[in-house]
Amino acid sequence: MKELLINIVEKNRKLTLEGKLADYIPALLKANKNHLGVTLKTEDGKFITYGEYSQGFTLQSISKVISFILAVSENGMDEVFKRVGLDSTDEPFNAFTKLDLPNVNKPANPMINSGAILTTSLIKGDGDEKFTKILGLTRLMANNESITFNEEVYLSEKLTGSRNRSMAYLMESKKILSGNVEDTLDTYFKQCAIEVNTRDLANIAGFISNGLPGLELKGISNKEMMLLVKGLLLTCGMYNYSAKYTIEVGIPSKSGVSGGIMAVLPRGGGIGIYSPGLMKMAILWLA
Amino acid sequence: MKELLINIVEKNRKLTLEGKLADYIPALLKANKNHLGVTLKTEDGKFITYGEYSQGFTLQSISKVISFILAVSENGMDEVFKRVGLDSTDEPFNAFTKLDLPNVNKPANPMINSGAILTTSLIKGDGDEKFTKILGLTRLMANNESITFNEEVYLSEKLTGSRNRSMAYLMESKKILSGNVEDTLDTYFKQCAIEVNTRDLANIAGFISNGLPGLELKGISNKEMMLLVKGLLLTCGMYNYSAKYTIEVGIPSKSGVSGGIMAVLPRGGGIGIYSPGLMKMAILWLA
Amino acid sequence: MKELLINIVEKNRKLTLEGKLADYIPALLKANKNHLGVTLKTEDGKFITYGEYSQGFTLQSISKVISFILAVSENGMDEVFKRVGLDSTDEPFNAFTKLDLPNVNKPANPMINSGAILTTSLIKGDGDEKFTKILGLTRLMANNESITFNEEVYLSEKLTGSRNRSMAYLMESKKILSGNVEDTLDTYFKQCAIEVNTRDLANIAGFISNGLPGLELKGISNKEMMLLVKGLLLTCGMYNYSAKYTIEVGIPSKSGVSGGIMAVLPRGGGIGIYSPGLMKMAILWLA
Amino acid sequence: MKELLINIVEKNRKLTLEGKLADYIPALLKANKNHLGVTLKTEDGKFITYGEYSQGFTLQSISKVISFILAVSENGMDEVFKRVGLDSTDEPFNAFTKLDLPNVNKPANPMINSGAILTTSLIKGDGDEKFTKILGLTRLMANNESITFNEEVYLSEKLTGSRNRSMAYLMESKKILSGNVEDTLDTYFKQCAIEVNTRDLANIAGFISNGLPGLELKGISNKEMMLLVKGLLLTCGMYNYSAKYTIEVGIPSKSGVSGGIMAVLPRGGGIGIYSPGLMKMAILWLA
Repeated sequence: MKELLINIVEKNRKLTLEGKLADYIPALLKANKNHLGVTLKTEDGKFITYGEYSQGFTLQSISKVISFILAVSENGMDEVFKRVGLDSTDEPFNAFTKLDLPNVNKPANPMINSGAILTTSLIKGDGDEKFTKILGLTRLMANNESITFNEEVYLSEKLTGSRNRSMAYLMESKKILSGNVEDTLDTYFKQCAIEVNTRDLANIAGFISNGLPGLELKGISNKEMMLLVKGLLLTCGMYNYSAKYTIEVGIPSKSGVSGGIMAVLPRGGGIGIYSPGLMKMAILWLA
Repeated sequence: MKELLINIVEKNRKLTLEGKLADYIPALLKANKNHLGVTLKTEDGKFITYGEYSQGFTLQSISKVISFILAVSENGMDEVFKRVGLDSTDEPFNAFTKLDLPNVNKPANPMINSGAILTTSLIKGDGDEKFTKILGLTRLMANNESITFNEEVYLSEKLTGSRNRSMAYLMESKKILSGNVEDTLDTYFKQCAIEVNTRDLANIAGFISNGLPGLELKGISNKEMMLLVKGLLLTCGMYNYSAKYTIEVGIPSKSGVSGGIMAVLPRGGGIGIYSPGLMKMAILWLA
Repeated sequence: MKELLINIVEKNRKLTLEGKLADYIPALLKANKNHLGVTLKTEDGKFITYGEYSQGFTLQSISKVISFILAVSENGMDEVFKRVGLDSTDEPFNAFTKLDLPNVNKPANPMINSGAILTTSLIKGDGDEKFTKILGLTRLMANNESITFNEEVYLSEKLTGSRNRSMAYLMESKKILSGNVEDTLDTYFKQCAIEVNTRDLANIAGFISNGLPGLELKGISNKEMMLLVKGLLLTCGMYNYSAKYTIEVGIPSKSGVSGGIMAVLPRGGGIGIYSPGLMKMAILWLA
Repeated sequence: MKELLINIVEKNRKLTLEGKLADYIPALLKANKNHLGVTLKTEDGKFITYGEYSQGFTLQSISKVISFILAVSENGMDEVFKRVGLDSTDEPFNAFTKLDLPNVNKPANPMINSGAILTTSLIKGDGDEKFTKILGLTRLMANNESITFNEEVYLSEKLTGSRNRSMAYLMESKKILSGNVEDTLDTYFKQCAIEVNTRDLANIAGFISNGLPGLELKGISNKEMMLLVKGLLLTCGMYNYSAKYTIEVGIPSKSGVSGGIMAVLPRGGGIGIYSPGLMKMAILWLA
């Protein structure tokens, strides 16, 4: 099994050379674009690892899955989907101006940035409370109490996050955001900066695959929640590339701009990948 | 098995009362909105039927699947996806003005009207040739040589199809349509008017599930074609409701405005449904 | 006076070299891009001419002024502005997809293509009746009974007018167009192909400046009509360049893609210009 | 003359009853919607006043004229119009999402909110420097050194200005805004809160009509500046209603949401109006 994994990784390694680092957050440019690491958590709970599997990186958009689970568990599914859609979109992750159309009053889905900011706003609590809960859930799902956030990346996101700030204030002006805008933005920038490795991701994926055991939920069963999260990843997890990815790969996955991919396998299995040289790689890896 | 089917149908029958007939094509208003029929084709090729299973109705958007298969088999996958996207969209089936944005040069996917018109334009042939091929493939997939098209519905679509005509001419002005516009429009209106019953739909679904045996293909294997079609249905088959439908139902399906649904089951199975009282029903049926 | 005119023309002649011929209608490419002609009609009805002043060319968008006057005189101002806006727009002459927004149900103004097609649709009559009226009014305003239309240009417009056809059918699908679509389109393509020279344009401008004497009007006085037409030219006559043109030039004018400009001077005066090498020239001429 | 003024005002007073106060800034709701005041400054510098002519109110969008004059005088016309357009738009004063289209990189004009925020960003200086200059120019133009800003309105705008904040951050993310965003927003909210009366407005209008005497300018003469400002008001001063207003009224004017209108007459004349019951009134007043 490990051999197979190594073969697949090595066959695809050349693709990392074609990729490039995300450059819109300066701190991300420090990554080594040739890094390529993977952890596969099997159905019976074993870990198979390869490459830079233990390299730390920030969750970025993968954190949207955590905050979504938290928002639904606190508010119930109905309340959350009154505020955010459940629609795949052909617009990119940072599109938001459709929100200003007269007949549109919610972000397309919780996986694009505007929808994720809105979801984070629905988590109850002031100041650092929201973030404390998100970090707590991340540690629980990853089974790793030592997880924390990267201060430098957080400050970098905060400083350069004008577009996210713009979409938060547009939603605020339309009164669809909950709580204090700056608290929400601060939480959002911080959750993106939570630092993990591929083993953590594989554990998070396995936790979802196992039906999110032990989570306290409101008006939704654990099994329904698991189906909801997996369905959401399948249809919206890769943004406007979701349809292509689902047709070619077919595994519920969430990517992050720092190079992480979390993929939920059946019966408790999960995959965590780290590959900061983006594009090409992302799609072909699992193919 | 038949008993189970009857139970499900009867439990959901009341939903037909809440639905309503499509009214944008006058000829469709003649349907009986309380009709509810189903054919289930099992893995071993048996048919279980119930209700108005033998009632005839027009394919409408379900025909987009046939013309897509034909266009890919004649042109190859690469050629087709140079002209039309493979992206789920949160815009409705008849949206097309995004095509006029400076950076957009193809319809989002082959299941929305603009994408389907474009796909039909890619089928080779002048005058009635395109349509003859589509009808032929429909008959092959449905295993029913007596299938033909409804002249009244066709003329009705042709007369009231200003919006489809508008999108065809916008694509023509952008030089992304192939062949003669009026030929393509005529073929499109005719393919929507092909008349079938639920047994035909179950057969068409089964044909896809079986890997489209005996189809002559260009640059794509039968298995790839099947995965492509199923993936396309899963991500785009229900338009902007595709994500919700996939999360709640999870079966690759295509709906038509006349009340038909074709759903592809594993290992050669298929379902054909007829329920002209639209909405509610459509989603809940398979749930 | 003639000397002044010659000086201005010659000073600006070099700009014609920087311009280029319209190429979206093949027949327009036959023009000589170095042609530059002008007729100035003075307040006391004299004509001062220079250059290729007698060269024939097609009205193109200048015809929109004629059909607008006709539509208002037949239907009254209120009826016309129920169907088309009176708003300057920053979108180009051939933009129309904003019409598909949920809260927009009319073209921005009668000078952009969609608004002009709608205005033409409001002229009463079937088949060639609309066009016969437009040609008649053109002859009356230009004081030239020999004016007719250029068959080759008309057929060329008809063949290549997919975008105009697309906007007409979008308006038809929204039920805002009046009468038969194909009749309206045919009239529109024909009115664009009416052939004039700069003396005709100067007369048309003078006719407007004189208050459209002898026109039979419905619910609007001649003076109000003149102010309406001049105001419309000032704010919308140069499309998205109207504001710039009004600030820099300040004379109510209408341009056409074949190189004509009609400019309305005070107290019965008017200017007709012909300069098929477009851009630069158009703006700087009158500066 | 005064009698004529009284007659016109009284004839139109009933229209104030149909109007309503702006409600999006809570502090504006304290105005008395039946107030109606006017100051006419004649060519020879006399003031004719009537009604609540001395009632104080905030400049709101009329301040955009002051900051525009300042930005041009400091940067020159070319520099300013590299960053903001000179196009009338049919979109409302607070539209801005078109900025996110791939081919659009500047606000339509300096009179809509996004364009005005951008213009304010171009005024040189940090912290309160920008505002000090704007207040200084307002006092100079109004010939009134006692003018200051309304703290309550300013704080109210700052608190409720999410939409303006959203557009500022979108422009910041596109790197088209100059200087510090929060400085610019603070200045913008403050300039809107500058308190004047109708005499001040009449003086400001007269100052423009007189060719902005004594202003230090960069790369543009006083006369060109006056023509630019008057042309800008004529084409963009009433937002999407500019064309209608110019056709019906024809006087270069700027309105503000608090109920002020400043109208520039020829040869040094000017009008200041205060009428917080908005709409109807605004258009018909000068008719």
